[in-house]
Amino acid sequence: MERIYLDHAATTPLDERVLAAMLPFFRGQYGNASSAHSLGRMARDAVEESRERIAAHLNAHPSEIVFTSGGTEGDNAALCGMLMHTRGQLVTSAAEHAAILGAARILEATGHDLVLLHPEASGRVSAQQVSEALTPATGLVSVAFVNNELGTVAPIRAISRVCRAAGVPLHTDAVQAAAVLALDVEALGVDLLTLSGHKIYGPKGVGVLYVRGGLDFRPFIAGGSQERRRRGGTENVPAIAGMAKALDLVAACGQEEAARLTSVRKQFEQCLLNELGDSFVFNTPIDGGAAPHILSIAVKPKGGKQIDGEMLLLNLDLEGVMASAGSACSSGAVQVSHVLRAVGLDETLASAAVRFSLGRSTTTEDVSEAARRLGRIVRRMRKQRTA
Amino acid sequence: MERIYLDHAATTPLDERVLAAMLPFFRGQYGNASSAHSLGRMARDAVEESRERIAAHLNAHPSEIVFTSGGTEGDNAALCGMLMHTRGQLVTSAAEHAAILGAARILEATGHDLVLLHPEASGRVSAQQVSEALTPATGLVSVAFVNNELGTVAPIRAISRVCRAAGVPLHTDAVQAAAVLALDVEALGVDLLTLSGHKIYGPKGVGVLYVRGGLDFRPFIAGGSQERRRRGGTENVPAIAGMAKALDLVAACGQEEAARLTSVRKQFEQCLLNELGDSFVFNTPIDGGAAPHILSIAVKPKGGKQIDGEMLLLNLDLEGVMASAGSACSSGAVQVSHVLRAVGLDETLASAAVRFSLGRSTTTEDVSEAARRLGRIVRRMRKQRTA
Repeated sequence: MERIYLDHAATTPLDERVLAAMLPFFRGQYGNASSAHSLGRMARDAVEESRERIAAHLNAHPSEIVFTSGGTEGDNAALCGMLMHTRGQLVTSAAEHAAILGAARILEATGHDLVLLHPEASGRVSAQQVSEALTPATGLVSVAFVNNELGTVAPIRAISRVCRAAGVPLHTDAVQAAAVLALDVEALGVDLLTLSGHKIYGPKGVGVLYVRGGLDFRPFIAGGSQERRRRGGTENVPAIAGMAKALDLVAACGQEEAARLTSVRKQFEQCLLNELGDSFVFNTPIDGGAAPHILSIAVKPKGGKQIDGEMLLLNLDLEGVMASAGSACSSGAVQVSHVLRAVGLDETLASAAVRFSLGRSTTTEDVSEAARRLGRIVRRMRKQRTA
Repeated sequence: MERIYLDHAATTPLDERVLAAMLPFFRGQYGNASSAHSLGRMARDAVEESRERIAAHLNAHPSEIVFTSGGTEGDNAALCGMLMHTRGQLVTSAAEHAAILGAARILEATGHDLVLLHPEASGRVSAQQVSEALTPATGLVSVAFVNNELGTVAPIRAISRVCRAAGVPLHTDAVQAAAVLALDVEALGVDLLTLSGHKIYGPKGVGVLYVRGGLDFRPFIAGGSQERRRRGGTENVPAIAGMAKALDLVAACGQEEAARLTSVRKQFEQCLLNELGDSFVFNTPIDGGAAPHILSIAVKPKGGKQIDGEMLLLNLDLEGVMASAGSACSSGAVQVSHVLRAVGLDETLASAAVRFSLGRSTTTEDVSEAARRLGRIVRRMRKQRTA
């Protein structure tokens, strides 16, 4: 039985070309980029050349690129780096990634005021909601570009206009956007932006935080003078080289890939409707406003009996389909996804949710077959439940 | 001309056996360790198996091992994770690594009381100094096991006895100790301990923070439920597998290697004395109390004119000898090392300091040759200075 990986929002396979870009730094070029000798300079050159390429992809200046250990650190650094040394209020949404909500709770515990906006059912936070939440005490607004569980795209440009008018910096977690949407920080009007390597066929353990020049940003991980004193720690040279290569590849084919995924997902939606009829709902706003690679659904209860989401995933896995309940970050936890709760999904439905996420290797055959297998499983589970 | 790498305290070459342990997770086994499907479970198994092996090497319980992105994050997490949610005072030393001092400054800025002990000339902080600094408000003591610039070994067991008697947790940055000293957390009596992969022939971008069970430790990088809610972010599976393999290799030959390095360094000291006579001083306490792999020296001024440390390093590099001024983390910065200042070294001497650090590949021939090249350079520079 062919295995079908539909969990690209959790992590993507490392592109062989990215690994090839990393290997020299695992072998001969092992220097510490802060060392003043020739081996150190080779590492430094690789880091700075990577930084330049990444900055170009974001339409940013190289000095605005800070390397991190990944999306979660990037989000923590954005929030704490902007607010920990101030008394500024944070405005964000209840449907944000756990990294944002985790950092927000730390800030709250250190005396910062926290405003959690409640998104509409699609997961969308509007510019008007942000506008109404802003006060003179607001120090930062943070809204994800693409919601990691629903795929909903936030109206970042509109939110940016509101923030700029009020003189409040705007952060966006673009981790789930990077593989499929353009990341031009000027066009988006964002002041901070988080990226992660392993969501774009790059390595785990590396990310980028874009920090607009001139912001009063302080190091979150403090230490040496690395990253212009904005992030201490020996630069992870192979991973940084890999991050740059991964972003090169995404930039080269992202738009084309997004169009292809949109059509693959359309096919997936149709197959699910054919297989499951009205016994499920789409959580993702499929009629517009969603990134092309994520499709979240929930299986309805039948005869008052609900489908157990964990059993559903287990059965999918046994049948070779790899998907996720909510985000991978919350799996293992027995709770229902905070995102699905935040968008007001009925608890019964939320606990029978599955997030499928497509990627470069996903074909229309894959999604048709995945829908067939899901159909079989749901019918079988419903029989067992009513037996 | 043969290149001689004497900067192992900045970073070590990745062991090919470590790379081999990492590669499967860069290829087929790319799952997110938090994903509930088969590919995720393979990653989870690798992470947990690595955790068990690392715990065994430290004489700790696997649940006490937290994976980080490296030494600097580990140090920040230790200090902030213990103190950010309390009003506890931090007692540490002025000769600590920049990661400790950086985190200490952040804590100070958020209202925490900070006590910086002043080490003696060897870089050593005594248990008595710690004892005298403790107050009922002290929430944490942090003293590095091995000073990264001088190689000085701290009397951790004695400091631990003082801390335990007062009921204060003790953290040690063991990043520079790991390649050469035993890391038994019970024997040392430490409550938190930081390790870094790339200082022990493992990968950059990964580290371990040991956190004794029962401590009120809060996440520093907050997010998902990874690492028992003590460190958010997708686990860096290849790097974690590499970290475990690197520690396996160190544990297998660390004691033998330490004995070998002690004898290589002894040879190095003799060669330096032969070459430079009384025109230099040892900053490292070579008569005892130093780890075997670090040798810091400073070239004395002649005729009132001092040797420029940066020029010295540049010349060494041109002659194929790779060394460091202070720590790699502070190179690039024009300032004199804060560690050398903290131990009271004369500014003129401190600015003409060189740290040599030995490793697995370093032979007696290497250090003899390095001493010869250094001798030539110093004699040449002195001629130029007086010309």
